[in-house]
Amino acid sequence: MNFASDNCSGVHPLVMDALVQANTGHAASYGDDAIMDRVSARFREVFEAPDAEVFLVATGSAANAVSLATLVEPWHAIYCHQHSHIQADECGAPEFYTSGARLVGINSDDGKITPGQLENAVKATPKGDVHTYQRGAVSLTNTTEAGTVYSCEELAAITAVARANTLPVHLDGARFANAVAHLGCSPAQASWKSGVDVLSFGGTKNGLMGVEAVVLFNPKKAWELQLRRKRGGHLFSKHRFLSAQMDAYLGDDLWLKTARAANLRAQQLSAGLNKIAGVKVTQSVQANIVFMQATRAQHRQAQAAGAKYSMAPYDTPMQGDADEILHARMVCSWSTTEQDVADMVAAFGG
Amino acid sequence: MNFASDNCSGVHPLVMDALVQANTGHAASYGDDAIMDRVSARFREVFEAPDAEVFLVATGSAANAVSLATLVEPWHAIYCHQHSHIQADECGAPEFYTSGARLVGINSDDGKITPGQLENAVKATPKGDVHTYQRGAVSLTNTTEAGTVYSCEELAAITAVARANTLPVHLDGARFANAVAHLGCSPAQASWKSGVDVLSFGGTKNGLMGVEAVVLFNPKKAWELQLRRKRGGHLFSKHRFLSAQMDAYLGDDLWLKTARAANLRAQQLSAGLNKIAGVKVTQSVQANIVFMQATRAQHRQAQAAGAKYSMAPYDTPMQGDADEILHARMVCSWSTTEQDVADMVAAFGG
Amino acid sequence: MNFASDNCSGVHPLVMDALVQANTGHAASYGDDAIMDRVSARFREVFEAPDAEVFLVATGSAANAVSLATLVEPWHAIYCHQHSHIQADECGAPEFYTSGARLVGINSDDGKITPGQLENAVKATPKGDVHTYQRGAVSLTNTTEAGTVYSCEELAAITAVARANTLPVHLDGARFANAVAHLGCSPAQASWKSGVDVLSFGGTKNGLMGVEAVVLFNPKKAWELQLRRKRGGHLFSKHRFLSAQMDAYLGDDLWLKTARAANLRAQQLSAGLNKIAGVKVTQSVQANIVFMQATRAQHRQAQAAGAKYSMAPYDTPMQGDADEILHARMVCSWSTTEQDVADMVAAFGG
Amino acid sequence: MNFASDNCSGVHPLVMDALVQANTGHAASYGDDAIMDRVSARFREVFEAPDAEVFLVATGSAANAVSLATLVEPWHAIYCHQHSHIQADECGAPEFYTSGARLVGINSDDGKITPGQLENAVKATPKGDVHTYQRGAVSLTNTTEAGTVYSCEELAAITAVARANTLPVHLDGARFANAVAHLGCSPAQASWKSGVDVLSFGGTKNGLMGVEAVVLFNPKKAWELQLRRKRGGHLFSKHRFLSAQMDAYLGDDLWLKTARAANLRAQQLSAGLNKIAGVKVTQSVQANIVFMQATRAQHRQAQAAGAKYSMAPYDTPMQGDADEILHARMVCSWSTTEQDVADMVAAFGG
Repeated sequence: MNFASDNCSGVHPLVMDALVQANTGHAASYGDDAIMDRVSARFREVFEAPDAEVFLVATGSAANAVSLATLVEPWHAIYCHQHSHIQADECGAPEFYTSGARLVGINSDDGKITPGQLENAVKATPKGDVHTYQRGAVSLTNTTEAGTVYSCEELAAITAVARANTLPVHLDGARFANAVAHLGCSPAQASWKSGVDVLSFGGTKNGLMGVEAVVLFNPKKAWELQLRRKRGGHLFSKHRFLSAQMDAYLGDDLWLKTARAANLRAQQLSAGLNKIAGVKVTQSVQANIVFMQATRAQHRQAQAAGAKYSMAPYDTPMQGDADEILHARMVCSWSTTEQDVADMVAAFGG
Repeated sequence: MNFASDNCSGVHPLVMDALVQANTGHAASYGDDAIMDRVSARFREVFEAPDAEVFLVATGSAANAVSLATLVEPWHAIYCHQHSHIQADECGAPEFYTSGARLVGINSDDGKITPGQLENAVKATPKGDVHTYQRGAVSLTNTTEAGTVYSCEELAAITAVARANTLPVHLDGARFANAVAHLGCSPAQASWKSGVDVLSFGGTKNGLMGVEAVVLFNPKKAWELQLRRKRGGHLFSKHRFLSAQMDAYLGDDLWLKTARAANLRAQQLSAGLNKIAGVKVTQSVQANIVFMQATRAQHRQAQAAGAKYSMAPYDTPMQGDADEILHARMVCSWSTTEQDVADMVAAFGG
Repeated sequence: MNFASDNCSGVHPLVMDALVQANTGHAASYGDDAIMDRVSARFREVFEAPDAEVFLVATGSAANAVSLATLVEPWHAIYCHQHSHIQADECGAPEFYTSGARLVGINSDDGKITPGQLENAVKATPKGDVHTYQRGAVSLTNTTEAGTVYSCEELAAITAVARANTLPVHLDGARFANAVAHLGCSPAQASWKSGVDVLSFGGTKNGLMGVEAVVLFNPKKAWELQLRRKRGGHLFSKHRFLSAQMDAYLGDDLWLKTARAANLRAQQLSAGLNKIAGVKVTQSVQANIVFMQATRAQHRQAQAAGAKYSMAPYDTPMQGDADEILHARMVCSWSTTEQDVADMVAAFGG
Repeated sequence: MNFASDNCSGVHPLVMDALVQANTGHAASYGDDAIMDRVSARFREVFEAPDAEVFLVATGSAANAVSLATLVEPWHAIYCHQHSHIQADECGAPEFYTSGARLVGINSDDGKITPGQLENAVKATPKGDVHTYQRGAVSLTNTTEAGTVYSCEELAAITAVARANTLPVHLDGARFANAVAHLGCSPAQASWKSGVDVLSFGGTKNGLMGVEAVVLFNPKKAWELQLRRKRGGHLFSKHRFLSAQMDAYLGDDLWLKTARAANLRAQQLSAGLNKIAGVKVTQSVQANIVFMQATRAQHRQAQAAGAKYSMAPYDTPMQGDADEILHARMVCSWSTTEQDVADMVAAFGG
């Protein structure tokens, strides 16, 4: 009954098999392995982007930071959501990799930025004023931190604002798979066809051991990205073991299957929780994350029953008024079972 | 017959087993997994260092760069060998992580720095002169890039110079296992008892998929190191899979067994090559690397037979005078077989 | 009738005299000039701080950035006002010099942060969470960007919050003289006795050609500050000409005299403007800055008469509804005359 | 009798007059002053470069660091002389401003790099190898640190190597005036016509109080340079006082007159010293610097007589063998008089 994070789940069996398979004989190191050629080809096919260049790293922060550093200069503002991972959860990795660019946080309850909000934020950055940060880039997240999913139309509308201001667009897709699974659109539609220039394509949360891909739809900065990856210490010597994971993940659409499974469990969890008196799901559940509220008494009971999930804020005290409404976040993963969901619902008295 | 690099070898079966074993159920992420507790305890035991703090990353460049950044300020000089990995092979990762510290390269044929050379280099950095780089830290490598191994006495002598100048000492131990296997001393003796403050303890080249440990013998900077690791994008979410590798590696001294195996193969290769007319091993073979020379004709013949290894310099032309003496580097790994060695020797006409 | 900025004013005659005086013969360079010894001694006397260390630079951004960089690490948050110069007007100099620290802006109408606001901002930075920025330092501004002045009690109250959280305090005193002139307290009271650790002591806006002093009340980081100043390219070779300006400025309390003069003119301007129908001074005038509003018609008339000052926002259009209320900022300097004030008031119809 | 450095000299009277002149009324700040327009125009005329963009800073380190940062990326190597100011005397300002580029020092006795040396250094940087620094830019110095002057032919030959490798060329011209005065060529010939892309045009050592110009012969990076200047804290608010100095300096070729004067004194000093038994001038004297040797006894006698100059190395002990030959550096400035030279020669027994 562990819904603490999709980061706490394991590696999909097919991915583990691929690792074992890849472990035969010698292979060229540092990305020159043959599996990587296959991975690049598969990415171009899946994304209908024959010119795209793809590079693998092992963490989402690395994918985001290296991507952003190729898009902006140190004196640039990066427009993003106030609760985005790059702003709130990476200890300043973007600032480090960009040599001091500034993240401009935009707030909302549902994790999404609107075109109007972006427009205002951009306008609030004076143009051509040497005394302030300059307009740099836009970074969106899909699936958002609030568990919601931008539709392709929403993405296109917001990237249109970026385009109108000649700002490149990065998409943090740590849970891109869950978004695409929800949208039912093509990966291309959910990325470059909706205005995304660089995609952090997540794998770790969705069944890999630790691989994320940076996808450059415009290959112009491919060499710079490789240098930044190397300089950041993110170029793996035994790279074939990153390639093998991604190869299994893309093969036979495993990435979408695992994402669909996680999304389905979130729907089931949401439905089950919503039936319980005193419990309420507070965000629209579109991907694999459920934001909910319950009384302190219910949370106590669930945790006593062994339920693992995150209070929001994380340091919410379990001592106190039993009837007080407390908020929490629950994340399903590719490995969450129907039984896990049933147990969780039962733990809350459902 | 692949002697191109120990980076081209695979993952030891026991390590792969450990990964499969670790892949059950959920685990706390970002280093809070239970396996990591065991790894830390095991490090303290192996190194007889009850206060040591240990942190895992996935690449040697990350281990080195993050370590050095905790030791120096941006205006510090880091004394190292001219051919050290940090100076020659990391695209400036140390400069990036330290925000611009300067590597002061010291040269020698055998990959080692002498106490006198270090003394001179330190003296050449004026003390208390605001116009120049300040004396910062010393970074040594054992096994060296030349395949030689500092004895513990040599280490102690050179770190004494560092100590006398109050400079902390980093040891790049990407092939630390091969050094200890050669020396037959205790890990403690090869590190902190010989004056090392921070150790990059390598695993990847010696049978892991991709894990290196930063060992802080003085735990004072443990929190800073964790922040730098995170900020560099090197804190793994599914950290248990790093822990599991290192757990298997340290368990039952696998790390020394694989290193001894690689070293033995290098001895065999060296012996075999040295018997061939026109072929000569040019560096003392103490670990798992063999530097050798042969005529161009011999190199051509070996490569035609499928032998893989590195010419030095790497772009040495294969066209040209058949009798010209050309240099090369051959690296044995934990997986190199006696047959591989025999094939290699045969390929050169032995 | 130029009230655009105190930056647009010239150099006080006594300062120019001092420059001419200093221009005799040779002098030791890079801060070793004899005048600097006198300046340091005078600072210690004026601030009743015998251990203070003082260093000169030529711009306020340099003073702020170098100061902050000695106080924080790259992963630290710096709490400051949303409209503070370091946050809004230095194109990221603090981020550059700190290698990527993050400025956390706190908002208010009067340019001041309250202890409660600081407390909340600090609490919003989780303690000991490796995923986010860490609590770093507090940077206050006195005179504030809104032209208001923190009382010593207000300063003490807010720095007490910093102290309780073991955060060092920087004071941007680009207009410190105007604040002290207004408060009538001792310089010590307005700085270290009220909890300030490092002061950017402004001179340029108040009659110098271009000199600001960094005053370290705790001399522990004096050497680091010198290295950061040098590395930033801010150590002057012909340093005596910085020293000479500061020497004249501190001598016979010139700095307070010029500040008092500027403050007085602001009072006169404020009084004059407030008497005009349709014109209103919108911020409490405590130093040398007047924030005011008037109709567009009045602004047009004043500007036609040659009045120079800043519209707020700076790109407010002069075309449009004649009756619309428009905001502006007017700054008095040491050189503003009573006639200038009278002309300005007259220009607005007073 | 102060020959310690041209940094120890004062401000030329005409420059001081210009400062006094500029100190009337108000002026637009941050480089928008009218004098700056004149300065830019004059630069374009003097350098026969109608498209050149010119920016003023106050120190040579700032000019160099900001210039280099616009030319290279953090992973770039900058080829320069081992004793160049950027490599030896700026405490890593270039590394700071470039976010960690690497200076590759080339050595020689006369302060000059040869085309062959540059060619070798460039070739030693592997092309397109992600593991190492990439080929970035060339930085030359004229007048060199050894007091020698590259001829325009020499400059053209070495910049041709840069051009052939598509590397931009920076010229540190802290003593550019002395070089041009010696060469008798046009400023254009000594810069862009000989392959220089960006020039640090020195003023401080040659009669200014503290102003250097960055001259971009290709204006493409003008905006970036302005942002880097601002972000470094080097954009002056009362900028007119930088402009005024440079205006006086360029007007009526003051810069060449002062440089010629200094060069002449160096010739006289050299001639005078060379006549003294036991004294020898050791470098060709082409600009305003004299490298010489004398016995310890002679140095002691000169210093006892009040002679000020720099021993090389600077910490050469004055105690010891009276007959030992000791080296020293003597620098003439615009203000050095014939009497100063005569006194210096006399002090050495001439």
